[in-house]
Amino acid sequence: MAELRGALIGCGFFAVNQMHAWRDVEGASIVAICDRDPDRLRVVGDQFGIARRYTDAAALFAGERLDFVDIATTGPSHRTLVEMAAQHGVPAICQKPFAPSLADAQAMVKACTDAGVPLMVHENFRWQSPIQAVRTVLDSGEIGTPFFGRISFRSAYDVFSGQPYLATGKRFIIEDLGIHILDIARFLLGDVSTVTARTARINPGIAGEDVATMLMDHTSGATSVIDCSYATKLATE
Amino acid sequence: MAELRGALIGCGFFAVNQMHAWRDVEGASIVAICDRDPDRLRVVGDQFGIARRYTDAAALFAGERLDFVDIATTGPSHRTLVEMAAQHGVPAICQKPFAPSLADAQAMVKACTDAGVPLMVHENFRWQSPIQAVRTVLDSGEIGTPFFGRISFRSAYDVFSGQPYLATGKRFIIEDLGIHILDIARFLLGDVSTVTARTARINPGIAGEDVATMLMDHTSGATSVIDCSYATKLATE
Repeated sequence: MAELRGALIGCGFFAVNQMHAWRDVEGASIVAICDRDPDRLRVVGDQFGIARRYTDAAALFAGERLDFVDIATTGPSHRTLVEMAAQHGVPAICQKPFAPSLADAQAMVKACTDAGVPLMVHENFRWQSPIQAVRTVLDSGEIGTPFFGRISFRSAYDVFSGQPYLATGKRFIIEDLGIHILDIARFLLGDVSTVTARTARINPGIAGEDVATMLMDHTSGATSVIDCSYATKLATE
Repeated sequence: MAELRGALIGCGFFAVNQMHAWRDVEGASIVAICDRDPDRLRVVGDQFGIARRYTDAAALFAGERLDFVDIATTGPSHRTLVEMAAQHGVPAICQKPFAPSLADAQAMVKACTDAGVPLMVHENFRWQSPIQAVRTVLDSGEIGTPFFGRISFRSAYDVFSGQPYLATGKRFIIEDLGIHILDIARFLLGDVSTVTARTARINPGIAGEDVATMLMDHTSGATSVIDCSYATKLATE
């Protein structure tokens, strides 16, 4: 089988992780990269030996024959880029947070459905070894059917130094971290029918919320509590 | 000051704990006991040397001059007994669960308020050393203002062998155990403005719910999660 040709759009903070991961994937390669910022384009392009570089997504889609595109920009640009991929018949993998609003999310899904193009939301936490190990134990039946789960991620990790824009968004903890924990809950306990959420801003230096607590009903009958925080000073970090 | 004269109504499973505790309290003594069951009356009366024994609460109130009464019966009888105490001008300490319904609870409070008689609900978990230690840390200011708390009590402890009636009640875990955990949450994080609760029955051998998960907003701004279960097999009990 011929190698699938992909492009990475967005060469920011997480692009290096994406590029490392794509390098490990058999049967697919990143053949082009795109970013509005020429400096970031150069840094990532040089590090991973990608010669084909674009500062404009439209030029990327016009200039390349692509089998897929990995959209690793921030949320607000996702709809435009996914719709552009759909128009060009290119399957898209979109990084989280998927969309800033439900309306945007629905439009993105519709654009790809109408175009007959696969659309995937990238989620990585459920693939971590400890989470996979929990899944394996559940699948073994050894501990029976789970009726309660708590998935907690609390720390005072300074996410803002690496990604300063996170301090300015009105929404924060659920989009940035909670989204992963919610996905783990779905992975372990199944689809969710209802969510009750509480959020709070503890760090006065940021615009958004840095603490969230969610209570969920799973269609399996299980109840879960998802609690996450970037304002929790642990004894040891 | 003269010793306060009290009576214990209800000589069931927990009466022995009550009697031991009253024996340790300075300035107050249990001078009479009451239970519908002559056997239980005899066992507790003999163990603690209480000669004045009643099988009927009305007879107790008629026959004794009391400074207080400790009502340690099960929930459904509380309203009748508290109202009886109020009618006799006797301050009442009522064991939990306070009342089977909000209407009963309000009637009990009204009866004592109208009679000018103190009414107390007995709660013991907040007085346990570990909980007091947490309160001391909070009061010290050392860890700042709490914005999140989780108070969890999960086990598969067989409460039903000691108190078989617990297996038959339609309500169970919140009345029996959750009530203590909720009180700890109030003790540590302050009064509660809203509660969201989920309950489940896991043990097929009982009539009521044996798992509860509650999400609470405290007027302090803190969020808490209270989770309790009598269906959780721990690694070590």
